[in-house]
Amino acid sequence: MTLPPRTTAAAAELLDPAEQPHDVEPRLAAQIAFIAEIDRLKTVVRLSRLLADDRRENDAEHSWHLALMVLVLAEYANEPIDVARTLKLVLVHDLVEIYAGDTCLFDDVAKKDQAERESAAARRLFALLPEDQENAFHALWDEFEARRTPEARFAKAMDRLQPLLLNFGNKGGTWRTPGVTHALVRDRTSVIGEGSRELWDYTEKLLALGAQRGWIEGG
Amino acid sequence: MTLPPRTTAAAAELLDPAEQPHDVEPRLAAQIAFIAEIDRLKTVVRLSRLLADDRRENDAEHSWHLALMVLVLAEYANEPIDVARTLKLVLVHDLVEIYAGDTCLFDDVAKKDQAERESAAARRLFALLPEDQENAFHALWDEFEARRTPEARFAKAMDRLQPLLLNFGNKGGTWRTPGVTHALVRDRTSVIGEGSRELWDYTEKLLALGAQRGWIEGG
Repeated sequence: MTLPPRTTAAAAELLDPAEQPHDVEPRLAAQIAFIAEIDRLKTVVRLSRLLADDRRENDAEHSWHLALMVLVLAEYANEPIDVARTLKLVLVHDLVEIYAGDTCLFDDVAKKDQAERESAAARRLFALLPEDQENAFHALWDEFEARRTPEARFAKAMDRLQPLLLNFGNKGGTWRTPGVTHALVRDRTSVIGEGSRELWDYTEKLLALGAQRGWIEGG
Repeated sequence: MTLPPRTTAAAAELLDPAEQPHDVEPRLAAQIAFIAEIDRLKTVVRLSRLLADDRRENDAEHSWHLALMVLVLAEYANEPIDVARTLKLVLVHDLVEIYAGDTCLFDDVAKKDQAERESAAARRLFALLPEDQENAFHALWDEFEARRTPEARFAKAMDRLQPLLLNFGNKGGTWRTPGVTHALVRDRTSVIGEGSRELWDYTEKLLALGAQRGWIEGG
């Protein structure tokens, strides 16, 4: 399939290969090119707004925030989790959006071809790495998406809980999108319970309070 | 000592305690308050500019980028490192700047009381957490600063290498600060070699090329 254009205007590589030192091992040169390319994640803007400033959050900030949430909240996982692997999952999970863009949780049209767009983006991005690391990064991304391991289920729970905290702190945020209701938000975030029943209990309290205060439409 | 004002105008807590659900365990409530407070790291602006956009980077994006660099470059550490602990070190290392602000590597005046400012900030920020986690986070921050473990030395190497890649990609960046010379940059980044001799070799090549192309002043 054809990928949408990159998120920045220039399709050129961010570190011009012609300007790199020539006497560097190809493996290290490939790793540095990948590290430069993923700078683009800082330009992928999400719908959620920060708590600390009046602007929208980007994917790099969001991924960092999820990693800190893993460090603080791991004790609430339904099953024991390997914190290191869970950190890797949340750090890597949004990289494909560099080419595939952010897809809103409530946008059913964009969600239709989301899997296909993101899969093509993963192949393109991870191919910048040496083959062993390409496979390792692709495996982490696959694991997150499939939610078949306790780590992936907890990582996904963080990914749903974080914007929910931002929306609650912003007295509504993206919950005020036309057509979004308490029942819909509850449906789209209930996956939190697969990672942590205790954090889903907490989420339900936030959503009930949000509805009661008029920050989410009832129904 | 007196701390400088917070980086955002409002000194109020980002999630108003009066608006939180009341039937939540105090431990979880404290953890959520910390997670909300650290949203401020996204508003601490550094001097380095992105590769992918014409704006300055913030500490949350920077910390995420370092974590990805650890995942990709760990094989170059001088001594075997525990990747999980190294990830934790880079994810946590800049949190104190929420209250202490970012200090430029080349600003010798600000560097004078940097340790004192950051230590006071660490005490204030980590005190939001339950005591066991307060101690764990403080220990991670101390470990990073002291550079006595292989993990801390590698984490610090990433912290120096990342803005250097941004400067190189931006054909100078903060290297163009008046008074900054090749010798000064080399001096302030040589700590990279304590974490990885191979990445320090690479750094020296970048700095030599930068000087040759006029992106850093000679001398």
